[in-house]
Amino acid sequence: MPIYNENILMLRNGRWQMMSEPIHFDRSVAGVGPAASFAQAWCNANESEQIGLIPCAEGGSSIDEWNAEETLFCHAISEAKFAMKTSELIAILWHQGESDSHSEKYKDYYRKLDVLVNSFRKELGVTEVPFIVGGLGDYLGKSGFGRSCVEYDLINQELLRYAENNRNCYFVTGERLYSNPDGIHINAESQRRLGIRYFEAYQTKSNVNKPLDNEVEIVNLCCEKEYTIAEKRYITLEQFTLGEGSLEEVMKFFK
Amino acid sequence: MPIYNENILMLRNGRWQMMSEPIHFDRSVAGVGPAASFAQAWCNANESEQIGLIPCAEGGSSIDEWNAEETLFCHAISEAKFAMKTSELIAILWHQGESDSHSEKYKDYYRKLDVLVNSFRKELGVTEVPFIVGGLGDYLGKSGFGRSCVEYDLINQELLRYAENNRNCYFVTGERLYSNPDGIHINAESQRRLGIRYFEAYQTKSNVNKPLDNEVEIVNLCCEKEYTIAEKRYITLEQFTLGEGSLEEVMKFFK
Repeated sequence: MPIYNENILMLRNGRWQMMSEPIHFDRSVAGVGPAASFAQAWCNANESEQIGLIPCAEGGSSIDEWNAEETLFCHAISEAKFAMKTSELIAILWHQGESDSHSEKYKDYYRKLDVLVNSFRKELGVTEVPFIVGGLGDYLGKSGFGRSCVEYDLINQELLRYAENNRNCYFVTGERLYSNPDGIHINAESQRRLGIRYFEAYQTKSNVNKPLDNEVEIVNLCCEKEYTIAEKRYITLEQFTLGEGSLEEVMKFFK
Repeated sequence: MPIYNENILMLRNGRWQMMSEPIHFDRSVAGVGPAASFAQAWCNANESEQIGLIPCAEGGSSIDEWNAEETLFCHAISEAKFAMKTSELIAILWHQGESDSHSEKYKDYYRKLDVLVNSFRKELGVTEVPFIVGGLGDYLGKSGFGRSCVEYDLINQELLRYAENNRNCYFVTGERLYSNPDGIHINAESQRRLGIRYFEAYQTKSNVNKPLDNEVEIVNLCCEKEYTIAEKRYITLEQFTLGEGSLEEVMKFFK
């Protein structure tokens, strides 16, 4: 169930474009993440306002790779600064930890996360910006590429503890999320529900410790909106470029 | 015919990843460009060395949008600087002009291109770096989104004149390139041949005024290489992530 909404933008080459998933492009096979349903829920609560997404995720990265001297951090700051030329930063969504779910790495995770959160806020000049952290899925530690993530629950405890102890930081649970066949990546349906949890934390300024009773319904509502002319034009052009439909059909929108 | 080569990298989040097309992500439906076959031809001539691609293209952009004060230029510089932390910039490939192929915009194109080339070289501290410009396709000015590009040939004349008059600048012809059904974008097969022309200009330090007699054969050679273990692992994982093959098959590569 794709989400198209002319009020949801994504950063490309330092500029805003209408969102089309995948938002992330760190890997060729990047799929659906939690940001799109977060953004759609935000739009439902902020009618006729626009929201922009700044993709910075890096598949398979450890928290050490997000150290403030490392490229991932510097690049994320650089991208955010391009975005902030024309917009206000309203939240940072963090979902990471699989690569730190072994070898007692959880023992340093709180401290490293603290440095990271403070570095992001300081570098971007947004000391009060909400920082929302997502728990890792219960399916970890079992199969495929997730097999080695045996300490995911200990990372989750650190994420929750961090949110409980720090101003404008919130935790959302990773309970009842399901994985792709690779055993490590959250599947698209679960990512949609996770995005709704992120928005709940953002909106209520509180931790989401349990899955929401109505998250499936909220997701369905997010994906079922009626398309505007601009959205229909966008979708028709996209489909045409992928080989569906006729040129005449598309050109009708560009008269 | 996809190109996979562990010696061809692309910039993602400021870091190098093995290339997988599409390299560009300015639009969700971005496809094959000239850079991959350029890179493969480069690898054929520079055995066991690595080449990296820095994607900066922006679909539909006019040369004014690449002005040195504009976001596209600033973002491209920012990306290139991340790349140059770990590599040497050996060339800049330019293919643009469709959006300037009407309303006598060609009259200012040479001057604007000159400012742009000098700005890129100055900002990146590479005054001698080859700047290779590609001609626009003969199919323009006729149908679909290309219909309005009636002055594409006048832009081509300016591109060629610019290359003839400026040090370390080379022109490659856009003759005998074919478009997608949209009437504006070069199709994948033609992009492959265009990349070979770009490499010919780079390698011979001269303009490529005619299609190469053997460009189809060179493209076939580029795409027919035997895969290394690393490439097979990459492809198998990519296919699995897209739903093909079994987890067991993939995990064999990660033992």
